[in-house]
Amino acid sequence: MPGRKYAVGVDFGTESGRAVLVDVSDGTEIATAVYPYANGVIDEKLPGMDFRLEPDWALQDPRDYIQTLKHAIPALLKESGINSENVIGIGIDFTACTILPTLKDGTPLCFLPAYHNRPHAWVKLWKHHAAQPEANALNQIAREKGYSFLDRYGGKISSEWFFPKAWQILNEDPELYAAAERLIEAADWIVWQLTGVEKHNSCAAGYKAIWSKRQGFPPDEFFKALDPRMEHILDLKMSREVVPPGQCAGFLTPQAASWTGLKPGTPVAVGNVDAHVSVPASTVVEPGKMVMIMGTSICHMVLSQEEKAIPGICGYVEDGIIPGFIGYEAGQSCVGDHFAWFVDHCVPEAYHQEARNRGIDIHALLEEKAACLKPGENGLLALDWWNGNRSVLVDVDLTGLILGMTLLTRPEEMYRALIEATAYGTRIIIETFVHHGVAVHELVATGGLPDRNHLLMQIYSDVTGKEIRIPAAKQTPALGSAMFGAVAAGKVAGGYDSIYEASQRMAHLRDEVYRPIPENTALYDRLYREYLTLHDYFGRGGNEVMKRLKALKAEVLTSKLT
Amino acid sequence: MPGRKYAVGVDFGTESGRAVLVDVSDGTEIATAVYPYANGVIDEKLPGMDFRLEPDWALQDPRDYIQTLKHAIPALLKESGINSENVIGIGIDFTACTILPTLKDGTPLCFLPAYHNRPHAWVKLWKHHAAQPEANALNQIAREKGYSFLDRYGGKISSEWFFPKAWQILNEDPELYAAAERLIEAADWIVWQLTGVEKHNSCAAGYKAIWSKRQGFPPDEFFKALDPRMEHILDLKMSREVVPPGQCAGFLTPQAASWTGLKPGTPVAVGNVDAHVSVPASTVVEPGKMVMIMGTSICHMVLSQEEKAIPGICGYVEDGIIPGFIGYEAGQSCVGDHFAWFVDHCVPEAYHQEARNRGIDIHALLEEKAACLKPGENGLLALDWWNGNRSVLVDVDLTGLILGMTLLTRPEEMYRALIEATAYGTRIIIETFVHHGVAVHELVATGGLPDRNHLLMQIYSDVTGKEIRIPAAKQTPALGSAMFGAVAAGKVAGGYDSIYEASQRMAHLRDEVYRPIPENTALYDRLYREYLTLHDYFGRGGNEVMKRLKALKAEVLTSKLT
Repeated sequence: MPGRKYAVGVDFGTESGRAVLVDVSDGTEIATAVYPYANGVIDEKLPGMDFRLEPDWALQDPRDYIQTLKHAIPALLKESGINSENVIGIGIDFTACTILPTLKDGTPLCFLPAYHNRPHAWVKLWKHHAAQPEANALNQIAREKGYSFLDRYGGKISSEWFFPKAWQILNEDPELYAAAERLIEAADWIVWQLTGVEKHNSCAAGYKAIWSKRQGFPPDEFFKALDPRMEHILDLKMSREVVPPGQCAGFLTPQAASWTGLKPGTPVAVGNVDAHVSVPASTVVEPGKMVMIMGTSICHMVLSQEEKAIPGICGYVEDGIIPGFIGYEAGQSCVGDHFAWFVDHCVPEAYHQEARNRGIDIHALLEEKAACLKPGENGLLALDWWNGNRSVLVDVDLTGLILGMTLLTRPEEMYRALIEATAYGTRIIIETFVHHGVAVHELVATGGLPDRNHLLMQIYSDVTGKEIRIPAAKQTPALGSAMFGAVAAGKVAGGYDSIYEASQRMAHLRDEVYRPIPENTALYDRLYREYLTLHDYFGRGGNEVMKRLKALKAEVLTSKLT
Repeated sequence: MPGRKYAVGVDFGTESGRAVLVDVSDGTEIATAVYPYANGVIDEKLPGMDFRLEPDWALQDPRDYIQTLKHAIPALLKESGINSENVIGIGIDFTACTILPTLKDGTPLCFLPAYHNRPHAWVKLWKHHAAQPEANALNQIAREKGYSFLDRYGGKISSEWFFPKAWQILNEDPELYAAAERLIEAADWIVWQLTGVEKHNSCAAGYKAIWSKRQGFPPDEFFKALDPRMEHILDLKMSREVVPPGQCAGFLTPQAASWTGLKPGTPVAVGNVDAHVSVPASTVVEPGKMVMIMGTSICHMVLSQEEKAIPGICGYVEDGIIPGFIGYEAGQSCVGDHFAWFVDHCVPEAYHQEARNRGIDIHALLEEKAACLKPGENGLLALDWWNGNRSVLVDVDLTGLILGMTLLTRPEEMYRALIEATAYGTRIIIETFVHHGVAVHELVATGGLPDRNHLLMQIYSDVTGKEIRIPAAKQTPALGSAMFGAVAAGKVAGGYDSIYEASQRMAHLRDEVYRPIPENTALYDRLYREYLTLHDYFGRGGNEVMKRLKALKAEVLTSKLT
């Protein structure tokens, strides 16, 4: 339409990149395109080589990110017929912490013949978990030396984050570490490829690289304590300059314009993290509302004007989500993954047959059967710790529990108990926020689960006693990125001067609302008290049996190998 | 062979009756025959009628017992070619407590046209569980009035036992109760049919009808306290005379001889209970050895010369198993049933497909996979209370628990955890015996499981740190009954004068021995300590969450119905 302006958002996910073209005036999605990464998640061997990776490794190929730009963005223009003249800005978001080593011109080391056969030259994906020894050592040193930054991360730095991953490179391939002139978040690297400008975003830096607006990064002496060769990592391989979301990082280079079909000089927003960019795209730009990104795990985000150290919350970052606010993040590490585990390992043949005969998904069948039960009717209670506890206990060594089974217990009763356990896990996170002065009045849920599992949403509403709304956008992170693209362009170019305005105009909620059913909430209040008792008994030192079993397992496996 | 003598044993089970003909000199099984009951377990509606039974009911048809005599015993003679002249005695054993109302001539009330359409006229099978309200009331009254007999049964009379079942008849069909001139154990009824003589065996009376050699039955005033109409139940419908096992009850009547093809006048042993008759058939006729009957549940039996009140042990009866000894009985209510539940509800399709492709049973596949694991390697711990706890907590309201699951936990790891949990349950029973002065040095395992699951046997040996032997006989209870038949005949007729001698000659163990592997036992000692902590926390009042969940479930189900 004449006079209409558009923005492009690109969401770089785990298996694919997804681009949307939206109308800047109201956020309407005009076109969408997906590019599945050719090399996907590299967790067995390096592409085209026989080198086998160890368990817990997860790499990616930066070529796949460039290919996303080259395929998905042109597809948007082709599908929509929109003239690139009317595309006023681009924003991108990425999984995090996903980092790669490059030369100082941005060339990934894995592109160089000298390094392409070395695993540490490749992108370390967020779920690369092989830096646990480094994370453990980092946490111990930080605790021993009394660094207060631990308080901002619930007391622990995750093995998924920036410095454990960087340290692993140094430990295992010091020559490559020395050759890496930059160690950079993939989000910032892709913005660099688009604009020719290296800018470090405050979201990834704050949540993943121990940066804070007031205190900056940890001092050099901390890195020296990890390893003397890391003392100057900030000045030599990173940047002390960190830019908040909503700023314009730079303008599309002629090369990037030729990749994408967009106009050279198009404003490009500072990079962002997929979960966090979903917050304004879920209409949340002010305190009191929690956004839950519900997929394999749940990421819970809340804004506040005040800085509070909340025990067991993954992190809080000023300007981390929305400029001017402290963005708090908590999480549950096992939600969709939990149900997938159950379906893969615990559902009998007859259920799969029934689902096939009826032409429905096995999850849909289980949901249908579980929905016939009332709260408490399954007689079961579970602790949702199959993948440890990310918040509020922050303990990867906790494991799952289910109790109450009888010889009459059926799979759908256990399936419901697992859903309920994750809902109790969310409630304890909400209560922890509220108890420490960060208000949570309403919930907005996005991610893959809300569309797929209505029973789950109702249970979350019943358990938390709160209304839950769902964003209207199909691709929440990509919309959020497009919104930041519109902010990078600014009002003069037909965009917005702040993400607040962009959210007001471009983000919407569905009419559909999940409301707590008082009768269910009353029953769940009783069950939640039981959950809390078990949570504290097994999670706060009443009985450390889970850790002892895990340690015994490791001991037995070690003795089996020797 | 000329001069050889034989005995017949008949084991009346839940679904069928099984007869064996054995050589009295050494117990060799010459022939075996099975009669599957035409009416099996009656738990939906009365045979040939539309009357629907309530849940928890389980009845049988006494005609099936007579048919067993008419079909299985003649089949033995036919198969073996043995002349009935050389069959010197018969013994029988029965499930218990399995009772029926009859006229004073032994005619079952369900044979009478006036009563055949009334469910209380039929045999109440051991697993008829509908008398729970009566059991609860009986226990409460006994406790309030301070009757010491409760101590002999671990503090509780089960709903499966004699007086709750009898009381249920009175409560629900008082007219039929009045018409019942006898209330009798099926074991004693079948001996009555064979001999024309009504004799009450001390095993069923002791373990199921609150009888003891020194104190007899509870006084009339106790029964009056239950219901005034029950005051004289002992004198009107039962007998105060109770006969120990090994005695001759009487001699085969001409009618019974015509049913069975045996000689009129053949000695018939006093009736017995299936589990208990297995003890001498497993070579155990002295203290220090525990016999475990391992099937859907486990029944643990030990002999002792001393009377000890052991908390949480199901019962002890002087002369209950072997004359001259106190026979102690404990039990686990969910063992084979546990694994069956797991296979039916928790094993994924791919495992069933693999088993089918390889032409093996799903249990065999799980056992094979679980056998690759070392103790502790699954990282799991379970409480084996899917069907409550029979010993040592004696609490039907306890439920199952499993903990330690991660997203990598596989079905065979959970399967092994369930086996291990039942082994810990057996160990705590053994330790309770030993702690209270009843020695247990060796284990002998019989029933269906020892033949089917070698991994399970090794785990039991490793967990208990004890050797486990297996009886040589394929049909242990039926052999035990035949042994008692040989004792009923006595030495003069070519049999034996005591079950001790009969056991020495006729019962054998296999050469195969399960021996504890010290390395495994050391690991299981550590896991067992964890089990004990959870056992006491959930089972002895640390956290009564299982009971609260069960109560909430009942509350929710009730509100759903109204």
